[in-house]
Amino acid sequence: MAVTFSLHPQLAADTTPVGDLPLSRVLLMNDANFPWLILVPRLPAVTEIIDLEENAQLQLTAEIAQASAALRNLTTCDKLNIAALGNVVPQLHVHVIARRRSDIAWPKPVWGVAAAEPYAPAAREALVAALGRALQVRQ
Amino acid sequence: MAVTFSLHPQLAADTTPVGDLPLSRVLLMNDANFPWLILVPRLPAVTEIIDLEENAQLQLTAEIAQASAALRNLTTCDKLNIAALGNVVPQLHVHVIARRRSDIAWPKPVWGVAAAEPYAPAAREALVAALGRALQVRQ
Repeated sequence: MAVTFSLHPQLAADTTPVGDLPLSRVLLMNDANFPWLILVPRLPAVTEIIDLEENAQLQLTAEIAQASAALRNLTTCDKLNIAALGNVVPQLHVHVIARRRSDIAWPKPVWGVAAAEPYAPAAREALVAALGRALQVRQ
Repeated sequence: MAVTFSLHPQLAADTTPVGDLPLSRVLLMNDANFPWLILVPRLPAVTEIIDLEENAQLQLTAEIAQASAALRNLTTCDKLNIAALGNVVPQLHVHVIARRRSDIAWPKPVWGVAAAEPYAPAAREALVAALGRALQVRQ
């Protein structure tokens, strides 16, 4: 039986796809409180970074750096927050979040602090397009 | 003027040193609620992973993997949490935390959920020694 990648339904529900890097699907979190990307390696049944093969760990590191640079270049941010938690959604996913001293959760981590604030559709579309260009992803 | 590495006083106050990997100082968080390591690259004035040179990013990735494996092997854990936040302490540091479904914060992230629980000195000493052996650090 072929085991293929399938995005966890919770991640699919909470995000808008930006496109695919060589390893990871890049998603924009549907939360206008924070410019917030999620990288999901397109591999079946992985929950921990250390369970990736070494090459995949290095590729993920490079893609986290790309996502970090894209967010920092496209947004006005004071700090990047990067995290692989996965206590609720076990599918391996990495948060890359642009934080501002003026944001609703600062200086706390973002999780659980405030309800997600929907983007205006045009703003979301513009940000997804700009991120896609910055990351040169396949869309 | 030489600019040298100096551990941020807040990190020094909150942790016990385990030893040095080639890039990072490894610290055990003084909180018995969670087996919790912090890796601090011994470089001056770095706050973001993407501001490390590429080789240092790859080395940090390898050291995060070593710390993750050591924690997973030495503790009974259900999930690893890995994060570089730095909203409060700007010196670049990476949290590597062994989470259990039975821990006080599960499934939330650990930050800000509960007051740190001091280790019994003998338990802390034993854990630091076991981590030092697992990581083969210079102590």
